[in-house]
Amino acid sequence: MPSYKAPVEEILFLLRDVFPIQRYNNLPGFAEATPDVVEAIVSEAGKLCEETLQPLNQPGDRAGCVRGKDGSVATPRGFKEAYRAYVEGGWVGLAADPDYGGQGLPFTLAAIVNEFACSANMAFALYPGLSQGALAALLTHGTDAQKKMFVPKLISGDWSATMNLTESHCGTDLGLLKTKAVPNGDGSYALFGEKIFISAGEHDLAENIVHLVLARIEGAPAGVKGISMFVVPKILIEADGSPGPANKVTCGAIEHKMGIHANATCVMDYDGAKGWLVGEPHKGLNAMFVMMNEARLGIAIQGLALSEVAYQNAAAYAKERLQGRALPGPKYPEKPADPIIVHPDVRRNLMTIRAFNEAARALIIWTALKSDIAHRSSDKTEVQAAADSLGLLTPVLKGVLTDMGFDNTVKAQQILGGHGYIEEWGMEQFVRDARIAMIYEGANGIQALDLVGRKLPKDGGRAMMGFLGEVKSFIKDNEADASLAPYLLGLQQALAHLEQATMWFMQNAIANPENAGAGSYDYMHLFGLVALGYMWVQIANAAIASKAAGNGDAAAMEAKLLRAKYFMERIMPETSAHLARISAGAETMMALPAAQF
Amino acid sequence: MPSYKAPVEEILFLLRDVFPIQRYNNLPGFAEATPDVVEAIVSEAGKLCEETLQPLNQPGDRAGCVRGKDGSVATPRGFKEAYRAYVEGGWVGLAADPDYGGQGLPFTLAAIVNEFACSANMAFALYPGLSQGALAALLTHGTDAQKKMFVPKLISGDWSATMNLTESHCGTDLGLLKTKAVPNGDGSYALFGEKIFISAGEHDLAENIVHLVLARIEGAPAGVKGISMFVVPKILIEADGSPGPANKVTCGAIEHKMGIHANATCVMDYDGAKGWLVGEPHKGLNAMFVMMNEARLGIAIQGLALSEVAYQNAAAYAKERLQGRALPGPKYPEKPADPIIVHPDVRRNLMTIRAFNEAARALIIWTALKSDIAHRSSDKTEVQAAADSLGLLTPVLKGVLTDMGFDNTVKAQQILGGHGYIEEWGMEQFVRDARIAMIYEGANGIQALDLVGRKLPKDGGRAMMGFLGEVKSFIKDNEADASLAPYLLGLQQALAHLEQATMWFMQNAIANPENAGAGSYDYMHLFGLVALGYMWVQIANAAIASKAAGNGDAAAMEAKLLRAKYFMERIMPETSAHLARISAGAETMMALPAAQF
Repeated sequence: MPSYKAPVEEILFLLRDVFPIQRYNNLPGFAEATPDVVEAIVSEAGKLCEETLQPLNQPGDRAGCVRGKDGSVATPRGFKEAYRAYVEGGWVGLAADPDYGGQGLPFTLAAIVNEFACSANMAFALYPGLSQGALAALLTHGTDAQKKMFVPKLISGDWSATMNLTESHCGTDLGLLKTKAVPNGDGSYALFGEKIFISAGEHDLAENIVHLVLARIEGAPAGVKGISMFVVPKILIEADGSPGPANKVTCGAIEHKMGIHANATCVMDYDGAKGWLVGEPHKGLNAMFVMMNEARLGIAIQGLALSEVAYQNAAAYAKERLQGRALPGPKYPEKPADPIIVHPDVRRNLMTIRAFNEAARALIIWTALKSDIAHRSSDKTEVQAAADSLGLLTPVLKGVLTDMGFDNTVKAQQILGGHGYIEEWGMEQFVRDARIAMIYEGANGIQALDLVGRKLPKDGGRAMMGFLGEVKSFIKDNEADASLAPYLLGLQQALAHLEQATMWFMQNAIANPENAGAGSYDYMHLFGLVALGYMWVQIANAAIASKAAGNGDAAAMEAKLLRAKYFMERIMPETSAHLARISAGAETMMALPAAQF
Repeated sequence: MPSYKAPVEEILFLLRDVFPIQRYNNLPGFAEATPDVVEAIVSEAGKLCEETLQPLNQPGDRAGCVRGKDGSVATPRGFKEAYRAYVEGGWVGLAADPDYGGQGLPFTLAAIVNEFACSANMAFALYPGLSQGALAALLTHGTDAQKKMFVPKLISGDWSATMNLTESHCGTDLGLLKTKAVPNGDGSYALFGEKIFISAGEHDLAENIVHLVLARIEGAPAGVKGISMFVVPKILIEADGSPGPANKVTCGAIEHKMGIHANATCVMDYDGAKGWLVGEPHKGLNAMFVMMNEARLGIAIQGLALSEVAYQNAAAYAKERLQGRALPGPKYPEKPADPIIVHPDVRRNLMTIRAFNEAARALIIWTALKSDIAHRSSDKTEVQAAADSLGLLTPVLKGVLTDMGFDNTVKAQQILGGHGYIEEWGMEQFVRDARIAMIYEGANGIQALDLVGRKLPKDGGRAMMGFLGEVKSFIKDNEADASLAPYLLGLQQALAHLEQATMWFMQNAIANPENAGAGSYDYMHLFGLVALGYMWVQIANAAIASKAAGNGDAAAMEAKLLRAKYFMERIMPETSAHLARISAGAETMMALPAAQF
């Protein structure tokens, strides 16, 4: 039976020593987030996730969701009570607008709670998690009446939400979608069509489900310019806000999938379901993108979350499992064998995972703070810079954290040997659950294209220049510090590779966009390594300061410095391979005729 | 529903143009393997795998094996008939000794058939596959009476076999095992203990199951020097060879695992089961190692096999799935969208997989031919050289082909986007099935240690010098050939990295063995890339010759040259990252106290 302990101390170190959130006290909601409040919230969230959500994770995987003949869906035993506890704790609306019942605390804190919840029970966390994107879309594009009708109930968690994009013949290419919206003449529309892969499309946790649906208004132009967004409640709402009759949207089937069995992935049938336009007609994609950016950061968090819980269980096993002897001779001669943590190759796997986890967590907080600034600051320059970083880093985090997170669950599973392959030990579930994060909310290849094709050239490369400038400033500000030099060196080399790769695109991809496509995936990962390395030098900096001040756990700080060194020695060398692959260009791969694949 | 087509043409190209097997006509069994016979065997095996085994793969995964209350195990529907067909075709004994009823054909052909069977249905292929290792152990260490009793029935497939090593508290470290053997006084022993993770431990396919079991004779020394090997039939055999009473060995449980559901992984309870010593007392590990080396090559084949079938299905999807447009503009303007094969990043994934598959297949054949020489040649020098290569390359093939094979199933799954995560499409089963190959028969970390700690230094590094000498000779013999130069260059650079890494170990690992342990995994992969690159230059050489002679499919040969180039451009750059990691040594990872993990 796997276990989970929320990394509360890690979070407090990051918010106190690495990115002191007190610096942002000028932003709405941050002044309330005093150190005491932050500690109380993080601890309380950790406790809920450890005690309530985690014990349901393995049984939930085994039981899965069950669809009744009437199209209703039952979640696994215990999920209803857990959802109730989650909602009553106010966790759904932690960072939401107080005007609609939210607590208005920093989004950064919500991102942290999301990590804990996904580590404890990813399939569960998806149910409330999906409301975040819907809230963003409705608050940005909804009418006042729509906001009033849907937002408070979503923030309270009484209702949940879904995103309905994919149809069987189109996922990435939404321009092909066929779901139709016919005006009813009363301002509402009747929706007809079938959507697939709808996470949390139907379930028994919330009183109502608010579907945000992409569809084409009858007579709309073909392609992406004819897509509109609609809000379609599962249960219609009367004028007084009370529940009305069921809408004509039903779950046609539950998909049988590799993992996240406890989350209902539904085929949704729209058979004249009543919906209301959100935002302008034919501009549904813009509205949906608001939702997707929020969601993508949430998926990146899943990558870290599963890497973290897999690490914890693998490390515990490595410290307990007695097998063989240390290479230079027995370390525990009184025992029948040494624990496998004595073996360099076991340590290599564990340190690789953890060197990722700590930097990824820092990167998520760094990015979430940018999001808070972008959404809450009144300083336009600051908002623009933060929004630039957020937009640029979102595909990097989604793609890199989910790829590396998945790889790490595989590495952690390997440490358990044969036990890792057996369901009972829980490691293989982490692998199966983590796998979806690389696919949904835009497969990672699409993230790479978004980065290289859209985010990089946007505004003349302003966001990229901003990011490079920030990293270079940090290096410059600290290059005189000899204690930081070993870490800075690795970052500098990686940064040089990133700049060379960027230059290569400028020289080669404008004439031939396939050169950008061919290098996009490696570029995304190269970028990710630089971003993670930038986090490590900041963590190392804080650890050195903490040690010098003598105000923390010196052994823990020393361990961080070793992991920072490990990251530079063992993970950063990959940047040169990425650069070599990017520089190879598209020629060879495009020369092969399709028939030869 | 996934599909599979055995790569018959690929095999014939390798056996005709790259490693002409006619060259080995002096070896027993090879003269019979005329081109016509080889083509007939490979085609027939392909047909059986495509038509009989593959259709049972997905249903078998869903149904799994079911243990009855009496400890019997039922395999999924259709497996009995398929096993019968496999046995009646003589496939189990294809390469086995004709003195015991085998066909005596080259082992190389058996390895090829094994690839097809594992691609079609890995869980099925394990049942007859396990007999190969048991045969090797019995033929090497068994008494004449044991050979006479067990070998013909195993070769015919009427009986199947298992390997019983692991106990719940020991897998890698067999010195800890507790299963006990008590002399019965009549030359037999009574075995007591529990073994876990026993593949094909109990099932309904064969008339009898021959368990090879590691146990400790009462009073034997502790540790690995007190382990003996026993042969324990499920059903005892009367003096006249007819089936007697059931032995006291039963399946206590079936493990619930991530994949290969259709293969029964059993907990086996020995409760006074009658067994007979195989080989000398206390030297069971030697006897078992014979079995394990054979088995490890078989597991390497599984890595390729799943990469191959995953590739085929991903490539078919990529050519059919219409989504988006090519980056420079529509390639199929008459269609609603272009097939996704137009996208560089999709091609990158596919070419990465296939550039591995073709080289891995060549490497398996190259290694299998070494095995044939080692076991069949009468020239002692030739035997020694071949045995050296076989021993050295076995851990490399097991570790690298299963790691890369698994990664490739993940890449292939990714091409299908959301569909890849849904059971119905079959891609996620390939991932789940491929995962075990990295674990069983010695987890890949153990393979890396075997390579660096045992195989590399053995006989003063003779095997490694032999391998390097062979590769260098090829380069030297061909360096004047301008058409081959682009491929040779990549190999040369990788070879230099391998030599530098080897030198680094010589300089740093003798004083501190942890430096070898810390670099072992990267070294294994670096070695694997050199070996695969060596295969690619040989394939390229053959393709160039075939094009020049105008005797083959010119487009297919051109495609091979593009894939060879792709391998050098996109996969080989990884060798520099491996070298950097190896050179980082053990210091950082060993400095971290266990409590900080």
